[in-house]
Amino acid sequence: MLTLSQGDLTEFIDELNMLKDQLRFREKVEVPTGIENIVIAGMGGSGIAGKIFSELYSRKPVCLADDYYLPDFVSKSTLVVAISYSGNTEETLSMVRDAVKLNAHTVTISSGGELADHGDQHIRIPRSDIQPRSATGWMLLPLLYGFNATNYNEVKEAYGLVEALDKDNTECRSHAKAIEKGEHIPVIYGASPFKSIAYRWKTQFNENAKTLAYSNSFPELNHNDTMALAKTYRKGSFYFLVFGSQSKKIAKRIDVTAKITDSKFNIISPKGHSAVSKLFYLLHYGDYVTYHLGLLRDVDPTDISLIEKLKKSMKQA
Amino acid sequence: MLTLSQGDLTEFIDELNMLKDQLRFREKVEVPTGIENIVIAGMGGSGIAGKIFSELYSRKPVCLADDYYLPDFVSKSTLVVAISYSGNTEETLSMVRDAVKLNAHTVTISSGGELADHGDQHIRIPRSDIQPRSATGWMLLPLLYGFNATNYNEVKEAYGLVEALDKDNTECRSHAKAIEKGEHIPVIYGASPFKSIAYRWKTQFNENAKTLAYSNSFPELNHNDTMALAKTYRKGSFYFLVFGSQSKKIAKRIDVTAKITDSKFNIISPKGHSAVSKLFYLLHYGDYVTYHLGLLRDVDPTDISLIEKLKKSMKQA
Repeated sequence: MLTLSQGDLTEFIDELNMLKDQLRFREKVEVPTGIENIVIAGMGGSGIAGKIFSELYSRKPVCLADDYYLPDFVSKSTLVVAISYSGNTEETLSMVRDAVKLNAHTVTISSGGELADHGDQHIRIPRSDIQPRSATGWMLLPLLYGFNATNYNEVKEAYGLVEALDKDNTECRSHAKAIEKGEHIPVIYGASPFKSIAYRWKTQFNENAKTLAYSNSFPELNHNDTMALAKTYRKGSFYFLVFGSQSKKIAKRIDVTAKITDSKFNIISPKGHSAVSKLFYLLHYGDYVTYHLGLLRDVDPTDISLIEKLKKSMKQA
Repeated sequence: MLTLSQGDLTEFIDELNMLKDQLRFREKVEVPTGIENIVIAGMGGSGIAGKIFSELYSRKPVCLADDYYLPDFVSKSTLVVAISYSGNTEETLSMVRDAVKLNAHTVTISSGGELADHGDQHIRIPRSDIQPRSATGWMLLPLLYGFNATNYNEVKEAYGLVEALDKDNTECRSHAKAIEKGEHIPVIYGASPFKSIAYRWKTQFNENAKTLAYSNSFPELNHNDTMALAKTYRKGSFYFLVFGSQSKKIAKRIDVTAKITDSKFNIISPKGHSAVSKLFYLLHYGDYVTYHLGLLRDVDPTDISLIEKLKKSMKQA
């Protein structure tokens, strides 16, 4: 069994604090003229950047690829952006090799690894020694800037919100304490344009706190989860974290869903004005909830030995 | 509290048996020349057809829309297929009205309702008196035929497999009994091209058996769930249903994941030769697991009063 050394904790707080610095990153994806569609290839902590981007940008079709293969439509009119923090993710490398064969315009984002050898453009992440999921700023901003989906002012606002959370995250810790007290399974409900952030929280619960967790989104969940909430097995076992919404329709759906299913929704209201600042606020809020839960559970948030074990087994296959 | 009348049960078995007949449906989406991309708009039980289709067809970009709004790229070069069983789903109607305004080529699929008044082409589902989620064949086949993603021979094989499950689904019932015995939360793991079927099972557990349930897919889950499986809260509370895969890499991932996380995976091996027959087999297998669980829990699989309640509240907003 793992026990935490003080070293591990200090190290991970350093990683969380690093998001702020990432918001100063000014690299951008160069989008050639004549591009008809976009594929973002990436897995896990490196795939989340594409998921977030695809919710904020839809002026061209954006398809996400999180498997070994690219979609069939990929051609020289496609921009394939392949993201892998290490640069050595098996699935992502398989996809980028295909992209090159298909003459797609290819951009790679990594801190090194084999991925750095591919791509019409390569964006180098300046540090290679942290967890991929702690490097979201470096992986996301080049997409947002490249497609004019944000600007420096919005990112500056995000900086302030992220910095404030670094200084005071007691509210995040309260949620973690409530989850630990009840040994609850976290369920995170988001809504556009933050559905991907709900999924991000789920993955952070998995990796930082080592517990299963699930995400879903309004209004789609009103067509499935809603039917289960009132009578589900183990009703008391879940802890609902729900992002507040400025959309009147979605806000109404949240209220009514909680009421008719007799569920306690813990509402997290995003701070900030722009969608981009709100998204970084929510993202970082989730970083802290899951980090604190990891501490309370006495698991090491940086331990991903099982993933390493799996990767090793896959190579022996 | 609800108690089941024999009438409800008989009715729902009739619905499940109706999938077979739906496989004789020969309507197809007409795809105009010059179409550059496709948007499938639909929610819940009517949205699943698009999700399944997008895994089997990728010769053009297919984007799914399950909210009030269409993506920004929609233009006259876009084919928007809007699916709502009732034809009156609030979100889908909002999207199809926008599609018409944007001069997109529009196909609507419904059993009537307001949706039937829209669309350059309308495909009429022949019955309007069953649950949307029991009408997947009618909603999916026109997409598959329209884009040449299947043929009559494959669907004929599917027919045989679906019919066999209608006659003997004791294996499905065994899973339901094990879930009920342990009051387990079902977790369904799929892999390409059946990731959407894993999600379909989740939604069927929600609606038919009234319990929360969650789905995820290989290889992506190896980057998140895997880290949680060994140490999660309430480890004994979950029941894992995992689709077997013919891909050696995915099969290896399934084996290794179960082993290193000390998890019991109940493997469901798809029958059939083509992807399309396998998908209908897996889909229908899940119909029966969730139906039996509904019976064992003494809930009414056809009761969706909470969704109706919500819809009513939304209209009053």
